[in-house]
Amino acid sequence: MLQERTIRIIGIDPGLRRTGWGIVETLGNSLRFVASGTVMSDGKMDLASRLRTLYEGLTDVIHAQQPDEAAVEQTFVNKDAVATLKLGQARGIAMVVPSLAGLPVAEYAPNAVKKAVIGVGHGEKKQIHMMVKVLMPKATFDTDDAADALAIAICHSHHRQSAQSRALLAGL
Amino acid sequence: MLQERTIRIIGIDPGLRRTGWGIVETLGNSLRFVASGTVMSDGKMDLASRLRTLYEGLTDVIHAQQPDEAAVEQTFVNKDAVATLKLGQARGIAMVVPSLAGLPVAEYAPNAVKKAVIGVGHGEKKQIHMMVKVLMPKATFDTDDAADALAIAICHSHHRQSAQSRALLAGL
Repeated sequence: MLQERTIRIIGIDPGLRRTGWGIVETLGNSLRFVASGTVMSDGKMDLASRLRTLYEGLTDVIHAQQPDEAAVEQTFVNKDAVATLKLGQARGIAMVVPSLAGLPVAEYAPNAVKKAVIGVGHGEKKQIHMMVKVLMPKATFDTDDAADALAIAICHSHHRQSAQSRALLAGL
Repeated sequence: MLQERTIRIIGIDPGLRRTGWGIVETLGNSLRFVASGTVMSDGKMDLASRLRTLYEGLTDVIHAQQPDEAAVEQTFVNKDAVATLKLGQARGIAMVVPSLAGLPVAEYAPNAVKKAVIGVGHGEKKQIHMMVKVLMPKATFDTDDAADALAIAICHSHHRQSAQSRALLAGL
């Protein structure tokens, strides 16, 4: 049997105004809440400074929390091109910071996150937040974005676990 | 009279596959070509690694060339949301790298760049590249993106100069 070890995952829900982050630990089937929070950027600052604020905030979180792996939500591409561009810029930062820290960075579509947390690929934000609390009763979050980030981290813990099971079965 | 000093400007034309950069020096009305190049990312790599490649490439250029100010093209928002998102991610990196190095980062719309270089707000890429060579006969560029980046740097040199003239006149 493979020796299992605790894996610490950071989930990130990117946004220019608010980027949520959540840290969970997973060992086999168990999940443990570690921390969560939100990096905010001031709308009155110029774009480059706002992106730097996100960069520095996420870098601080990764240095303090030392996660092993990262997961980022695959941004919903809506019809508003200006909003898509803004989100893309924030998402570029959310992807590059863990990569620069040497972490593998997985991406999950919003419906994959919903499926992992509430069992189906659709559902309201409220349901996701409720299930985050059911799965990790000690979880706390200051914003919806931090709750979403925890859901993304949970999604990654499920996916990496089933990938591991498949690898184990393949090795039998 | 104000003491003038040489200002070194980096222009950046962001793209996920190819990010062009160009360095010019400006003193009063004069413009001098310093260097240009292109940071490429491998389409076979995952997104986070591609963004890291752009980040590290641009960081190396800024460390080597020590520009005083940066100018980035305001991405054209087209109708393809997936392309807009990709460009947004690369643009996030192009904005944050000079900002982390302490440089002010200006943004210019494509038509402002065209107006600065060829005198009107529209025109073909070929015309822009020709005018870059007319304005700086020693300029060389390995890709269209590097030529565009030089045009962005030239645009910034014009804008900062007219801002300076206005400040001088206001002080009379």
